[in-house]
Amino acid sequence: MGESLTESRTETTLPAPGGQRYAEPRQAAGTPEGRGTIGTQRDGRPAPTEGHEAATLLEWARAEVDPVLRTALGSLPGPMRRIALYHFGWERADGTAAEGSSGKAVRPALVLAAAAAGGGSEARAGAARAAAAVELVHNFTLLHDDVMDRHTTRRHRPTAWSAFGDADAILAGDALQALALRLLAQDPHRAAPAAAARLADCVVELCAGRHADAAMQRRAPAEVTLDEVLAMAEAKTGALLGSACAIGGLYAGASEAEVAALDAFGREAGLAFQLIDDVIGIWGDPHRTGKPVGADPAARKKSLPVAAAFASGHPAAAELAELYARPSERGDAEHIALAVERAGGRDWAQGQAADRMARAMQQLARAVPDPEAAGDLLALAEFVTRRAG
Amino acid sequence: MGESLTESRTETTLPAPGGQRYAEPRQAAGTPEGRGTIGTQRDGRPAPTEGHEAATLLEWARAEVDPVLRTALGSLPGPMRRIALYHFGWERADGTAAEGSSGKAVRPALVLAAAAAGGGSEARAGAARAAAAVELVHNFTLLHDDVMDRHTTRRHRPTAWSAFGDADAILAGDALQALALRLLAQDPHRAAPAAAARLADCVVELCAGRHADAAMQRRAPAEVTLDEVLAMAEAKTGALLGSACAIGGLYAGASEAEVAALDAFGREAGLAFQLIDDVIGIWGDPHRTGKPVGADPAARKKSLPVAAAFASGHPAAAELAELYARPSERGDAEHIALAVERAGGRDWAQGQAADRMARAMQQLARAVPDPEAAGDLLALAEFVTRRAG
Repeated sequence: MGESLTESRTETTLPAPGGQRYAEPRQAAGTPEGRGTIGTQRDGRPAPTEGHEAATLLEWARAEVDPVLRTALGSLPGPMRRIALYHFGWERADGTAAEGSSGKAVRPALVLAAAAAGGGSEARAGAARAAAAVELVHNFTLLHDDVMDRHTTRRHRPTAWSAFGDADAILAGDALQALALRLLAQDPHRAAPAAAARLADCVVELCAGRHADAAMQRRAPAEVTLDEVLAMAEAKTGALLGSACAIGGLYAGASEAEVAALDAFGREAGLAFQLIDDVIGIWGDPHRTGKPVGADPAARKKSLPVAAAFASGHPAAAELAELYARPSERGDAEHIALAVERAGGRDWAQGQAADRMARAMQQLARAVPDPEAAGDLLALAEFVTRRAG
Repeated sequence: MGESLTESRTETTLPAPGGQRYAEPRQAAGTPEGRGTIGTQRDGRPAPTEGHEAATLLEWARAEVDPVLRTALGSLPGPMRRIALYHFGWERADGTAAEGSSGKAVRPALVLAAAAAGGGSEARAGAARAAAAVELVHNFTLLHDDVMDRHTTRRHRPTAWSAFGDADAILAGDALQALALRLLAQDPHRAAPAAAARLADCVVELCAGRHADAAMQRRAPAEVTLDEVLAMAEAKTGALLGSACAIGGLYAGASEAEVAALDAFGREAGLAFQLIDDVIGIWGDPHRTGKPVGADPAARKKSLPVAAAFASGHPAAAELAELYARPSERGDAEHIALAVERAGGRDWAQGQAADRMARAMQQLARAVPDPEAAGDLLALAEFVTRRAG
């Protein structure tokens, strides 16, 4: 979907030469400072803008959405409530209160920022249930992903299936999906039915993306095309960010074209995030703690830079194929990283990330032509791509 | 919920003495023949009524709902569609067309019959999407239940997880829940939002019931109270039948009280079904093939007759506790069956099933006072309880 909406429209949103930096709509309105190179560290706090800092936006989103989430989770029957509260970090496994992290609230913040961009503070206030619904969907997929991937920790705690068993984690996920769609079914806002339909479509796309990822990991790396990996990443990562923005737009009464552009904005930013996350998964991020360097090569993951390396036709791709065919051994992550880099996978991924952010900016300018109104969405997109890893 | 709506209201709907037969509202309108004893075999086809035979109603429901279901499943992305079509019996695992069974369509038939009872053929026609949504929810829970229970066959085919793996069966279930709620979100009928909220609530209740069942099976039988088992059975089995009827009522423009009575009707009929199914799970049904005799005792299942036996205080209950504590061995299913019977578990379950059907009839008379209009719902409730096993 995002792929069909990426044509350049305005001069101000074309990527700068070299593909490593992206121009921003806001530059036209008087914020000349560059926003850092994609995939590299920016020092300190975000530059002052017409909009708000991402950290503030996320904090506001938490404050607006958490009461709705807590009421929704509180409506669950006992055991389902307990698993859900544990997953959100609000209770320990024994049911006592906790102050754990329930995530960064990026998706609810996107819903609220998109609503505010199109309809001001009134639209923003009206979209709180929708923002909570999007966050519930995100968390339902995390619960099920953790079961399927056998992840043992999330947000510095044992995953729900580790604490309560597979069946209860599956059931709690099912219940959270139902809660999400119930929030929208009971929302009297006139945008609610369209938002519910969009969110349900998004769930289907997330499931398909999750399936494609698993199916791809089982195939030989040379058989997986770059387009397939990009499509998978868009479904798995881009779809929910896009839906969050589109749903915010619906609550602002945006036109169909604007909603489509908001969706494309979120999808492109999501893909940029995934590309950078994949780069960090191979080469790490020297400036921060996060994924250990080489985690993805050690797991023989077919991430985006790897798919690009295989598709390059470079001699290093053959070497890479050989390394991927061998059983994992100590130190081979470095060899893999080197082969991917020599085959051009790293440069491709970084250039592609910059390109995706440029496309995101184009879509944002289309959806919200006033740079001041678009400021918060831009700040969140930048946060999403900077925080990768 | 069903529990609070069970007071007798009319003379015509009181259970007959002995608790083994139930009087019917329709008897007052000129169909004097008895409808057979609950839990026993009736010979041949249902007696003629003002309404339609259950088999005809189910066939009509399939004809009305299958096109909606096929369109909905057809909208899924490739791999999710394939798993869903396989689960519904419409494709083989290799993707070729199949003519397998997708179930008896009891729940969609209840939606349509409840809509018709309150609003005639127009309301019935308007409820097709809602009926399909209820069937999608039912099938989503089957997909997940089969993963959790490790069931290897369903509808005479390998279960979806057996054919495609756990992850894909979980994802396909997630996608079906989303499809169900999308159907309602896109339904322009004014009852759709209330129906969606009700269906989402029902999903939460089904999850809680499924959790309670598993948790109960892990506890010592003497610790499990009869009320707990009844509440679990109502959530696990009664809730969706009740929601199906209630949603049909919403599409007919029924009053809140009528919708509540329709919900209670479905719940009570569902409990009656579960009681009879549990009886058959221990003693079998001599008149038909189905569950093998003794399957539940062999699995040490804490079904309703067993819970009643443990709660009886009869000396046979102590013997039963001893049998349940021992590892399974050849022939002990018979001993368990005998102990449950001596402790009064069988009589209790059969009496309780009759009582539940009587309560269902009372609720039906409240929801749809005209016996002629209620005929189809009655026929379906009788079908549900007769077909147990």
